[in-house]
Amino acid sequence: MGGGQLARMMAPAATALGVELRVLAESPEVSAVAAVRTAPAGDYTDLDTLLRFAADVDVLTFDHEHVPTEHLRALQEQGVAVRPGPEALVHAQDKLVMRRAVEELGLPNPEWDEVHSAEELVAFGERVGWPVVLKTPRGGYDGKGVLVLDGPQEASTGTAAEWFAQCAEADSDEGLLAEEAVAFSRELSAMVARRPSGETVAWPVVESIQVAGVCDEVLAPAPGLDPAVARAAQAAAVQLAEDLGVTGVMAVELFETPGTEAGFAVNELAMRPHNSGHWSMDGSVTGQFEQHLRAVLDWPLGATDVVAEAAVMKNFLGGDNQDLFAAYPQALAAEPRAKVHTYGKSVRPGRKIGHVNVVGDAHELGTLREIATHAASILRDGEDRDARPTARGEDEAATPWGAVPEAQTQAPLVGLVMGSDSDWATMRAAAQALEEVGIPYEADVVSAHRMPSEMLEYGRTAHERGLRVIIAGAGGAAHLPGMLASVTPLPVIGVPVALKTLDGMDSLLSIVQMPAGVPVATVSINGARNAGLLAARVLGSGSGASAQQVRERLQVFAAELSEAAHRKGASLRDAVARGASATD
Amino acid sequence: MGGGQLARMMAPAATALGVELRVLAESPEVSAVAAVRTAPAGDYTDLDTLLRFAADVDVLTFDHEHVPTEHLRALQEQGVAVRPGPEALVHAQDKLVMRRAVEELGLPNPEWDEVHSAEELVAFGERVGWPVVLKTPRGGYDGKGVLVLDGPQEASTGTAAEWFAQCAEADSDEGLLAEEAVAFSRELSAMVARRPSGETVAWPVVESIQVAGVCDEVLAPAPGLDPAVARAAQAAAVQLAEDLGVTGVMAVELFETPGTEAGFAVNELAMRPHNSGHWSMDGSVTGQFEQHLRAVLDWPLGATDVVAEAAVMKNFLGGDNQDLFAAYPQALAAEPRAKVHTYGKSVRPGRKIGHVNVVGDAHELGTLREIATHAASILRDGEDRDARPTARGEDEAATPWGAVPEAQTQAPLVGLVMGSDSDWATMRAAAQALEEVGIPYEADVVSAHRMPSEMLEYGRTAHERGLRVIIAGAGGAAHLPGMLASVTPLPVIGVPVALKTLDGMDSLLSIVQMPAGVPVATVSINGARNAGLLAARVLGSGSGASAQQVRERLQVFAAELSEAAHRKGASLRDAVARGASATD
Repeated sequence: MGGGQLARMMAPAATALGVELRVLAESPEVSAVAAVRTAPAGDYTDLDTLLRFAADVDVLTFDHEHVPTEHLRALQEQGVAVRPGPEALVHAQDKLVMRRAVEELGLPNPEWDEVHSAEELVAFGERVGWPVVLKTPRGGYDGKGVLVLDGPQEASTGTAAEWFAQCAEADSDEGLLAEEAVAFSRELSAMVARRPSGETVAWPVVESIQVAGVCDEVLAPAPGLDPAVARAAQAAAVQLAEDLGVTGVMAVELFETPGTEAGFAVNELAMRPHNSGHWSMDGSVTGQFEQHLRAVLDWPLGATDVVAEAAVMKNFLGGDNQDLFAAYPQALAAEPRAKVHTYGKSVRPGRKIGHVNVVGDAHELGTLREIATHAASILRDGEDRDARPTARGEDEAATPWGAVPEAQTQAPLVGLVMGSDSDWATMRAAAQALEEVGIPYEADVVSAHRMPSEMLEYGRTAHERGLRVIIAGAGGAAHLPGMLASVTPLPVIGVPVALKTLDGMDSLLSIVQMPAGVPVATVSINGARNAGLLAARVLGSGSGASAQQVRERLQVFAAELSEAAHRKGASLRDAVARGASATD
Repeated sequence: MGGGQLARMMAPAATALGVELRVLAESPEVSAVAAVRTAPAGDYTDLDTLLRFAADVDVLTFDHEHVPTEHLRALQEQGVAVRPGPEALVHAQDKLVMRRAVEELGLPNPEWDEVHSAEELVAFGERVGWPVVLKTPRGGYDGKGVLVLDGPQEASTGTAAEWFAQCAEADSDEGLLAEEAVAFSRELSAMVARRPSGETVAWPVVESIQVAGVCDEVLAPAPGLDPAVARAAQAAAVQLAEDLGVTGVMAVELFETPGTEAGFAVNELAMRPHNSGHWSMDGSVTGQFEQHLRAVLDWPLGATDVVAEAAVMKNFLGGDNQDLFAAYPQALAAEPRAKVHTYGKSVRPGRKIGHVNVVGDAHELGTLREIATHAASILRDGEDRDARPTARGEDEAATPWGAVPEAQTQAPLVGLVMGSDSDWATMRAAAQALEEVGIPYEADVVSAHRMPSEMLEYGRTAHERGLRVIIAGAGGAAHLPGMLASVTPLPVIGVPVALKTLDGMDSLLSIVQMPAGVPVATVSINGARNAGLLAARVLGSGSGASAQQVRERLQVFAAELSEAAHRKGASLRDAVARGASATD
C-alpha cells in the first residue's frame, strides 16, 4: 500500500526472489509505478478500494503508516494477511501509544506526557525544563508535526495554539505528546526484522545524521559506538519487535545519551523499511527491502552481516538540478564507487529524490563519506561545485583493472617512526621494502625521551588515522616501540638499532623484553628490511582484495629470493669447479 | 531484445538508476516480462516488429545474440542506437568470425580451421591430433552446436554428417569450425565492459566450472590463478573489446593452459551479461547488469572491485522440484547467507531457472561453495538431501546479532606450534590469550629437527588451510620460527623458550637474528602471552567485521590492564600510608 520510494525499492528484491509485487499507488505518477508490472491507482483511505486491491494478494504490506487502523482491521476480518498488523502498526502511527509501550517494556524513554492544553504543556515544561518538544501523535514525518518550544510563552501562540485548538475540536480525548528535549550526542538507529513465526534478526546499529529534521547521512555501523550500548540498543529493538508482535522491518530511532544509565533513549518507531536502513541495500548480506519481503511472507530471514567493514548512505534532495539524468555522467565519472539509487520522482526543492551508497573499509570512512557526498551533490546541483581533489576526473578513464582508487592506495597504512633522524640510515631499508611491495607509509621522527607527549599522541591516534601497522626503530635504551605498543591496539614492530657500543644488544633487549600484556614484534638488530617485510605480511594476512595483492607480491619476492640463492649457489659451484680445474 | 533471465536481471539495475527498461519478449510468459512495466510480445526475426519496438527507445540492447545481423544494420540506418552494434556483435554470433579476429589480434587461439566436408575435417584431425571439436559457427549455446569427435570415422557419420549436409545445402560458402581439443586445467572467464566513448573496465578473472557443457559454478576471483596470467587475460579481453568496438558487457571464456606461452587460450565470446558474471550482482561494487546498462547508455562505468574477498555463484537447473516457492523456506532457513536469484521460468529438467550467490572471505571459499551448493540443491530437489552439518537447522532461529556463522568462527586462524611438547608449559599462555580474545587456533608439536619435512609442509600449507598467523615457540638452537617463516607468506611470531642453561639468550638470538628477507616477529624470552596478544593485534589490524570485534576486545583488555595497574598503585599507596601512619 503506497507507491513511494520504499515500495519502489522492494521491486528489485521481489524480482530476485521471484515474488510478484503489486502496488496500490496514490497516482500513476508516484515513484513505485515505473518499477512494477501492476500498479493500479487508488485511494488508500477508501475501504472498498483496499478490499478490491487485496482480493487476490497473499500478503498486504506498507510503504507508509497512514492507512486507517479501522480499515486494516476490516481487511483482517476479510481474511487478508496484513503485515505488520494493525495492533503492531498503531505504535508507529501514534506516538502516544508508542511512548506508553516503551514505558511498559521498561525501555529508556525521554521524559514525556500527554498534554491537552497550553496550561498542561507549561506545567510539563516547568517540570522537565525548557525547551520542550511538542508532537502531534499522528501524521508526522521528516520533522513535520514536531515543534520545539523554548519557553512557556510559546505554548499558547502560533502552531502550538493551532494544534491545541484542533485537539479541542476533535471527538477523541487524545492530546498532544510533550517530550523533554533530550541532550544527545548523536542519533542512532537500530533496525530489526521479524517474521510471524517469531524469528527476529538485527542489523548493526547505525549513526543517522539529520539536517533540518530530515535524514541526511547514515554511517553503518555507527563509528566508535560503545559495544555495550550497541548490544543494548539491538536488544531493545528486538524486544520491541517481539513484544509488539511486529512483522516486517522495523526501525527504532534512538538518541545516544552518554552518561545516562542506558546510554540511549528511544526516539521514534517506523514499521517498514526506513531511510536509516538504505545502506543495507549495498552494505549488508541482506538488504532491508529483501528482508521486509521475506519477513512479511513468513520466509526465513537472511544474514544481516555487513559485506564490507563500513557503509555510508547519503540522501539527495531536490535542488537546483531539474534533470537528474543530465548530471549522471558527471556524477558517475567522478565517483565510480558510488551506488546511485534514484526514486523516479519529479524534482522539488527539499524532496527526497534518491540516495547514494558507498561501501569499503572502516579506516577509509572519511573517504567513503566524501565519495557519497560528492556524487549526491553533483546530482543535486547539476554541476560539480566542490570537486574532491582525489576523485576521478571526467576526462580520465577508469583503470581497466578495477584497481583501488588512488585516494585509498595513497593513504599510509604503515607508520615508520624512529627515535632520532640518525636512525634513518638504518630504517630506510624498511621504507624501501614497503615501496617494493607497494605499501604506502609515512615516516617521522618521534622520540620517546625528547618529545614524550607527541610520541604518545602519535601512538594513540595511529589507528584512527588509518594506520594498520607501526614500525618503530630505536637504539640504546630503546623505549619507543614498547611505549607506542602501550597506547595503540595496532601491531608494533620494533627494530633494534645498533649504537657505537654493545653491538645493539642494549637496543635488542630494551625492545624485545616487554612485560606480558604489551607485545612488540621484534626483528634482528638493524633488521629494518625485515621489519618492512613483516609489516607487509601483516597487511597481506588480512581480508580484502588489497591484502591479496600484497600476498601475491610477497610470493613473487620469495620466488626472487629463492632464485637469487640458487644463482649464488650456481656461481659458487662454477667458481669451485673452475678452481678445481685450475688445480687439476 | 529478448525476455530471458538476462533481460530480467537488468530490471533491478534499471530501477536503481531510474532508467525505463522495455523488453521485446518472445511471449508473455518469458522470464523478464514480470519484472518490467512494458514488455510487448513480438518476433525478433521480424524487421517491422523490431522497427516498431525501437521507434521510441533511446538505446537497443540484447538478452541474446540471435537477432539477424541484417536487421540490426537496418535499425542502425533508421537512426536506432544498437549496442553492441552489428559489426561487433557478429564476433559473438559467428564463431568463425571470432576465431579470425582473435588470430588477427595476435591473441592465443587454439588450433582451428574452417572445414566444409568430412574430408577436410579428417585432414584437420590428422594435423592437430584427435579428438577434435566441431562447432556450428552460429546458434550454439550451453553446449549446443558443439560436437567432440574421437577419430576420423566419426567425421562422416551422425550429427557431423548432418551438419556438413546442411552446409552443402546452404547458399553461403561458410563451413563449420574445427578446433583442437585443448588440454586445459580449468575454464576461466574474463569479463569487461566498454562504453561507446571508449572507457573500458575489467572485473577480476573468474573460474567457471562446467557440467555437461553447462555453467554450473563460478568462483570469483579464480582461486590460485597466476597473477601474470590473470593480467594477460584481462588485457586480452580489454583489447578485444576495444579493437572490435564492443559496447556493453562482454565475457571472454578462456581455457587455462599451464605450460603454454600465454597460459590461456580464447574459447568463446559473449557480448552481453553472461552466466560467468552473475557473481558480480552481489560480489562486485558494480554488478554486470548495472554495468551493461551504464555502458550501452554511454554513462561512465562503475568500479569493478570485489566487495568481499571471494564470491561463489551456483546455478540451479530444473530438477525434481516443480514448485520453487515451496522449497524457499527450507533453503533460506538452511543458508541465511545465500542470495537467491530466481528467473520466474517454468521448471523443466536441465533448464537454468536461477542461481545462488554467496560472498565472504577467501579463506572460507570451501564454506561459501558448500552454502551455495546446498541452497541451490534444496531449491532443485524440493528437499534437503545433503544437509550440511554446519548449516543452520530450520527449527533453529537466526542469531539476532547477525553473528558470523559457527563454521567460520571455529576455523582456526592462528597456528600455535612448538618444537617439543615440553614447550607447552610456556606456550599455553599464548593459547590462553587467544581464548580470552576469542580467536580460534590450532596447537601442535612440529619439530624443525626431528620432523623437518612435516615442519615445512605445515608452513607451506598454513595459508591455504585458512591460518592467518603462526606462533612458533622453540628453545636452544631454536630454528622452528625462522624455518616456518621461510616457506609461508604469513606473519610468524617467534617465542624464545628458555632452557636450563643460558637463560633463553640462545633461543632469543636464534629466533630474532634472521637474515634480511625472512622476518620473524620475536617476543620476549618465554613471552608466550604477548605472542598471543600480538597475533590478536595482527588479526585486529585487518579488514572485516571480525577484525573490528578483535580490536574492541583488545581495547577492553588494555583498559583492564590499566585498571589493574591503577589498583595496584592504589593498594601500594594505601600500604605506604598505613605504614607511614603506623610510624607516626
